[in-house]
Amino acid sequence: MNDNPLDQLIRHLAGLPGLGPRSARRVALHLINRKDDILIPLARTLEATAQTIKICSACGNIDHADPCRICTDRARDQRQICVVASVADLWAIERTGGYRGLYHILGGVLSALDGVRPEDLRLQQLVTRVGDLQPQEVILALSATVDGQATAHVIMDLLREAPVKISRLAHGVPVGGELDYLDDGTIMTAMRSRAAV
Amino acid sequence: MNDNPLDQLIRHLAGLPGLGPRSARRVALHLINRKDDILIPLARTLEATAQTIKICSACGNIDHADPCRICTDRARDQRQICVVASVADLWAIERTGGYRGLYHILGGVLSALDGVRPEDLRLQQLVTRVGDLQPQEVILALSATVDGQATAHVIMDLLREAPVKISRLAHGVPVGGELDYLDDGTIMTAMRSRAAV
Repeated sequence: MNDNPLDQLIRHLAGLPGLGPRSARRVALHLINRKDDILIPLARTLEATAQTIKICSACGNIDHADPCRICTDRARDQRQICVVASVADLWAIERTGGYRGLYHILGGVLSALDGVRPEDLRLQQLVTRVGDLQPQEVILALSATVDGQATAHVIMDLLREAPVKISRLAHGVPVGGELDYLDDGTIMTAMRSRAAV
Repeated sequence: MNDNPLDQLIRHLAGLPGLGPRSARRVALHLINRKDDILIPLARTLEATAQTIKICSACGNIDHADPCRICTDRARDQRQICVVASVADLWAIERTGGYRGLYHILGGVLSALDGVRPEDLRLQQLVTRVGDLQPQEVILALSATVDGQATAHVIMDLLREAPVKISRLAHGVPVGGELDYLDDGTIMTAMRSRAAV
């Protein structure tokens, strides 16, 4: 086929995470069949997002204002900073509704394999921010993977001198999780961290 | 969250076929993180598609010209019309590269359950087109489902008087398909339509 907007559209869609050529064609047809109520609003929203989206210079969050809604929300607890790898993780924690402090987005985790070095992450900004805000607690909400835990250790090292309590998410059995399907490491950690009832 | 462009974007994406809230968030983050090389080109392409896309008044195909590229391609065999339910089916046949005739897109198949009646499909246009073009063959490339086959029968009935050969796609074992996983109906049909080698 020639390179007309339709083929271009399918190619662009097929490059999105989770979509392949087949689902991209399906999405493209759906968009075209519902041009006025789906395709055009989506195009407008993408355009609006491109024009207004900003990275918060304080915490690294994505928002339409800088500083972001979370950093400027005076109702939030300024004495807690929750360190996450990505905005997706921030959204995941926000959806729980159980945390009312601030965030700090690293922009990834250290990874020798992927070539992510300390200077690629917002680590120095975290140290400066802890110095400025003087929070009581820094919560490391990083994945329980080798890379996540290595990153956590580097942060603990960087904040060693700061008068701040550093905590991490609890390890254990996921809520609704069946023991039979869990790996040994998780079961062992859950056993060691067992709580009185 | 308030209704800002970012939330709107996620909601629009989550409404697309094959995407849910989680994958929509993932796609939105991907778009925002790659604003200049992915988000903006996608927005432009959607806008361009919305402005230029047309439905071919002859065959019902989606294209940037009316009549479409296939209808106006003089190299294609004007003596064959392949009847398909949707543009997706047309694309599927075009990808094989094995058919060089014209198409006629019905816009669906008859379905009592979904309330699709003969007047909802481009059946009358097919009859008119067969009268005008006087093709040698009408190929019914409809799904081997109850609805697809009911639609095929209605078309055969409508074209009973026309001096045209009507054929349908062969039924049989899919290429690469294992007998063990096929339903009895397919195996029986493949057995009855067996070919000498």
